[in-house]
Amino acid sequence: MRIGVLTGGGDCPGLNAVIRAVVRKGVGVYGHEFVGFCDGWRGPLEGETVPLDIQAVRGILPRGGTILGSSRTNPLKIEGGVEKIKGNLAEAGVDALIAIGGEDTLGVAKRLFDQGVKVVGVPKTIDNDLNATDYTFGFDTAVNIAVEAIDRLHTTAESHHRALICEVMGRHAGWIALHAGMAGGANVILIPEKPFDIDRVCAYVESRFQTRYAPIIVVAEGAHPIEGQMTLQAGELDAFGHVRLGGIGEMLAKEIEKRTGKEARTTVLGHIQRGGTPTAFDRVLATRFGLQAIDAVHDGEFGVMVALRGTDIVRAGLGEATKELKTVPVGRYEEAEVFFG
Amino acid sequence: MRIGVLTGGGDCPGLNAVIRAVVRKGVGVYGHEFVGFCDGWRGPLEGETVPLDIQAVRGILPRGGTILGSSRTNPLKIEGGVEKIKGNLAEAGVDALIAIGGEDTLGVAKRLFDQGVKVVGVPKTIDNDLNATDYTFGFDTAVNIAVEAIDRLHTTAESHHRALICEVMGRHAGWIALHAGMAGGANVILIPEKPFDIDRVCAYVESRFQTRYAPIIVVAEGAHPIEGQMTLQAGELDAFGHVRLGGIGEMLAKEIEKRTGKEARTTVLGHIQRGGTPTAFDRVLATRFGLQAIDAVHDGEFGVMVALRGTDIVRAGLGEATKELKTVPVGRYEEAEVFFG
Amino acid sequence: MRIGVLTGGGDCPGLNAVIRAVVRKGVGVYGHEFVGFCDGWRGPLEGETVPLDIQAVRGILPRGGTILGSSRTNPLKIEGGVEKIKGNLAEAGVDALIAIGGEDTLGVAKRLFDQGVKVVGVPKTIDNDLNATDYTFGFDTAVNIAVEAIDRLHTTAESHHRALICEVMGRHAGWIALHAGMAGGANVILIPEKPFDIDRVCAYVESRFQTRYAPIIVVAEGAHPIEGQMTLQAGELDAFGHVRLGGIGEMLAKEIEKRTGKEARTTVLGHIQRGGTPTAFDRVLATRFGLQAIDAVHDGEFGVMVALRGTDIVRAGLGEATKELKTVPVGRYEEAEVFFG
Amino acid sequence: MRIGVLTGGGDCPGLNAVIRAVVRKGVGVYGHEFVGFCDGWRGPLEGETVPLDIQAVRGILPRGGTILGSSRTNPLKIEGGVEKIKGNLAEAGVDALIAIGGEDTLGVAKRLFDQGVKVVGVPKTIDNDLNATDYTFGFDTAVNIAVEAIDRLHTTAESHHRALICEVMGRHAGWIALHAGMAGGANVILIPEKPFDIDRVCAYVESRFQTRYAPIIVVAEGAHPIEGQMTLQAGELDAFGHVRLGGIGEMLAKEIEKRTGKEARTTVLGHIQRGGTPTAFDRVLATRFGLQAIDAVHDGEFGVMVALRGTDIVRAGLGEATKELKTVPVGRYEEAEVFFG
Repeated sequence: MRIGVLTGGGDCPGLNAVIRAVVRKGVGVYGHEFVGFCDGWRGPLEGETVPLDIQAVRGILPRGGTILGSSRTNPLKIEGGVEKIKGNLAEAGVDALIAIGGEDTLGVAKRLFDQGVKVVGVPKTIDNDLNATDYTFGFDTAVNIAVEAIDRLHTTAESHHRALICEVMGRHAGWIALHAGMAGGANVILIPEKPFDIDRVCAYVESRFQTRYAPIIVVAEGAHPIEGQMTLQAGELDAFGHVRLGGIGEMLAKEIEKRTGKEARTTVLGHIQRGGTPTAFDRVLATRFGLQAIDAVHDGEFGVMVALRGTDIVRAGLGEATKELKTVPVGRYEEAEVFFG
Repeated sequence: MRIGVLTGGGDCPGLNAVIRAVVRKGVGVYGHEFVGFCDGWRGPLEGETVPLDIQAVRGILPRGGTILGSSRTNPLKIEGGVEKIKGNLAEAGVDALIAIGGEDTLGVAKRLFDQGVKVVGVPKTIDNDLNATDYTFGFDTAVNIAVEAIDRLHTTAESHHRALICEVMGRHAGWIALHAGMAGGANVILIPEKPFDIDRVCAYVESRFQTRYAPIIVVAEGAHPIEGQMTLQAGELDAFGHVRLGGIGEMLAKEIEKRTGKEARTTVLGHIQRGGTPTAFDRVLATRFGLQAIDAVHDGEFGVMVALRGTDIVRAGLGEATKELKTVPVGRYEEAEVFFG
Repeated sequence: MRIGVLTGGGDCPGLNAVIRAVVRKGVGVYGHEFVGFCDGWRGPLEGETVPLDIQAVRGILPRGGTILGSSRTNPLKIEGGVEKIKGNLAEAGVDALIAIGGEDTLGVAKRLFDQGVKVVGVPKTIDNDLNATDYTFGFDTAVNIAVEAIDRLHTTAESHHRALICEVMGRHAGWIALHAGMAGGANVILIPEKPFDIDRVCAYVESRFQTRYAPIIVVAEGAHPIEGQMTLQAGELDAFGHVRLGGIGEMLAKEIEKRTGKEARTTVLGHIQRGGTPTAFDRVLATRFGLQAIDAVHDGEFGVMVALRGTDIVRAGLGEATKELKTVPVGRYEEAEVFFG
Repeated sequence: MRIGVLTGGGDCPGLNAVIRAVVRKGVGVYGHEFVGFCDGWRGPLEGETVPLDIQAVRGILPRGGTILGSSRTNPLKIEGGVEKIKGNLAEAGVDALIAIGGEDTLGVAKRLFDQGVKVVGVPKTIDNDLNATDYTFGFDTAVNIAVEAIDRLHTTAESHHRALICEVMGRHAGWIALHAGMAGGANVILIPEKPFDIDRVCAYVESRFQTRYAPIIVVAEGAHPIEGQMTLQAGELDAFGHVRLGGIGEMLAKEIEKRTGKEARTTVLGHIQRGGTPTAFDRVLATRFGLQAIDAVHDGEFGVMVALRGTDIVRAGLGEATKELKTVPVGRYEEAEVFFG
């Protein structure tokens, strides 16, 4: 068999580990051949490929990013996109396709499968918000990077009697904020799932200042205040004449300073959360996902994606991944609230 | 209520996170009082306690070890041990006990419960070999430390065209070796569950030397050859007149050198695997274990231990933990074997 | 003797190591007594002290921040500030003072010395811009944190064919940017000492995109374009209606996107550069600084600060530290330029 | 010009950074050509080369080990070795040679230079024991790895009221032990330069157990007791029938247990100290060494090696490196002794 592989959407530590596992087992155990498509769906759309053999995957297990490149190209939004892909897959002599990606990528995979393409999906989202699997790889790495940053913020916050705000990824789901905040000993965690009450946040901040410690607030980029609070003012200019007002983290800092009279500073972790070498957890999970994906192809079971359930890697319908977002349930947030203030 | 807490057995990153969660929720939400017993069962046996309040648990979340101390004292092996403990618990005014520990510690907890003491257990084993829970805290930290070491060994092995052997913990179960070896890109993983064939190990080593990479072998301390192979010879003396023969790692190095003619060196990770700050995964798991344990006490549900099932923290019978060892199943080892050689 | 200790200015990994060394040798070897002043010059100004003995410094060596707290309080800017301090030092029975801090803190120390107070200084600046010493502690830690971030940015930049900009500390001197950029394999490094030519920066970015790697730009927060380039436009609003324009890093991203047509993203490291556990280099340097400072006090040599010259810790005049800023010399920047593009 | 490059002796984080800097500046600025010799002096001895151009050095800056391989092959010990090398260099069209290595490698370089070969040396020793330079690259990385391990050992030692011994590299010089011990807060540091008194070591151990902390002993592999103490006994057998007695670390543990009645355990860091990604300090130092080495070649100044003096990279005579070992001076050890016990 000749199998295509692609990685779509935002990159995520562990992508290379999936690719390696697929190829190592596919070539070594099953005797398949592989072809890599470049930059997500752009590859099959434009017929751009790279060689993908045992040699190509040597040494990539600990490397972040993806050797295949990625993009957010969505063929469903391109006139005749799906047909072009089917044509290019046929031309490249591809019998089956393994698509590694998030909601969007797997949505395209599902559409292709519905039109007869033999596809297996591997779920990927650093935000951990895919419904069909307990965890996705990359998430554990992102959380650890955030926790390392939070650990560092504690001592500097204490030394200066300042509130420090750490803005982490999570536009629609607060998983990274929840886990990083719980692991980092945050005094408040703010997530998109639950609009926050700025008065309560400030009360936590004030009460923390009564101890010899200083408040650390972990906020998901998608968190927002309950309606009517924190109306946005035009950004003030700083010494260089730059407008300093940024995302929710900076808004929060300004608001806390105004209301409590204490200094507050924000750190936005940004792209360092998604780059670099994966944790052991993510390397193992990604490797096992890759093994299961190639097994599914070998078994001729298509239209599925791999998933973690407990300690097992199972197969689930491709549709399941894209059904609904897995957000933080109320109970999990309440666990964290025990440590607020 | 007045609740006693103790930590028994080998230490493990995350113990302090459990203690903190128990106390923070116990005091802050339920209004209980706490007393810490020193050094595992030695504390209640000898009536030695330390204060345990909100102040005592500040700042301990990221710290390895246990603020309560630990020991391997087993009251079941001490004449009248259990009675003494019951007496001392009563004297300390303790209404319920939270015992954090492994098989031995939980075995004592079970016995005490059978005799009417109100006990809740929290499972702890860095080896991840307790049956009733998907994972135990400390394991993820140990695996990450091992993987970091293995990542380092790769480059030095390659530069010198040497085989490098990394001996990790795991006397009876190979979980750390399996996960660290899979995440670290080991060429061979040897675990106690499956006696190894030294000829096959050497064949993997030889084949790896055909590439520009060098073999890395991850071996659990309890791994052993199939019967008859590698009969132990009296240790040779080194330049200082010391006998150099150590554990399985060093035996393996000698044997590989003899059989393949290539240099082989061993690194024994030892105690650094169990010390230091826990990973985010372990901090979250330990915190959630602590929360569930104090909830169980508050609910008046005793004779149970907390456990992870998928993403949920549940309660299981104290007996379950000690029923049988959770060893690496054949299927999991076969996953790893794909990457051997 | 009774010796006061204070830490002033921005915190910096290694402050606690200095304090510990001072106290350990002062008490253990010389038999002195210590008193800690809170929050830099605010402590002696308001007469606020904390106990400072062997017990107080146990376990603080690896901890970031400062157990004494810090502030930017400058008594020279306060009417009668210096007199108040002299009065409070006398009242606290302090025979000599060890002041740990940067230019401002040491400037006050110099003024006090000129007025008869027995002072020894320990230089501190995470920016490494003090003239009298080869290196200051905290700098190595900041550089390592930045390099770890840059290592992570490489893989995510490559996967998405994006330019990634990493903004590091350095308002007036580019040392952190220079070292982190050189160690992190940056394609361009921009420092305050040399106004940059945006056309040239874009040329480097374009040429890097010709390889399979992606451009990483390390920029000190105080870097700026040559006059006339990159005139500031009013910030555009993002999806949430927030003005997104921030520091030099974000300005640069916008400009590169506009001129090259490639995506560019910025990460601002911020406070994580100054918090957390110090590197080995900083712990050793800070410890040796502390030892030399207490030796100077014991020798009765005041009005001096300690300094690193080669591998030796020496004493220099307090005035030297504050004479002029140590900026990056042309030769050092040219070394780095070899790797641009 | 056509320039050969080789790396000899034990590998060391930073070797690749040197190679990269040499090639990047040599090709990019000076327009030279390069050829890599494999495995130290084995390469020129046997005429084995690899291509070495800009492409070959892409991405190697953060990688441990050496892309050229290494060996301990010493042509001075081989009949006609030097002549063979001269012949092979001529045959490969090599005009000049850059030799990166320790005492042995640079000794050969010196001999070749004396016989008319155009050689520039780059000093390398993880042990930091070369006289002509303030620091060598690799040392800072090794020290940081050791400190990370020691940080971890503290908490496990405390939890179990055990002494923990950490054996680090350093056969003839105690630099790694000194710096790692000082940075790690060791209670005793033992180095080859000063035979230790086991009674005094045990006294330190005992006194440490009076606090709530536990003793950590850092010992260089080449440390030894004063004559007559700790006479070696035949190793006892452990549960598996293995002789357990190993290096100085294990001997020390046995002796401390016997004399103090307390548990003691040893961790031997071994090869993880020399593998893996270099610290920022080592990357910068190695890069600057490489730049200076290619400058020397370009300037036609041969028979020299590069060296760090303060913050400057200078050139020193090749002979200087091999004159005498740089051991830990008494004053530096006395600094550390302040913290013993």
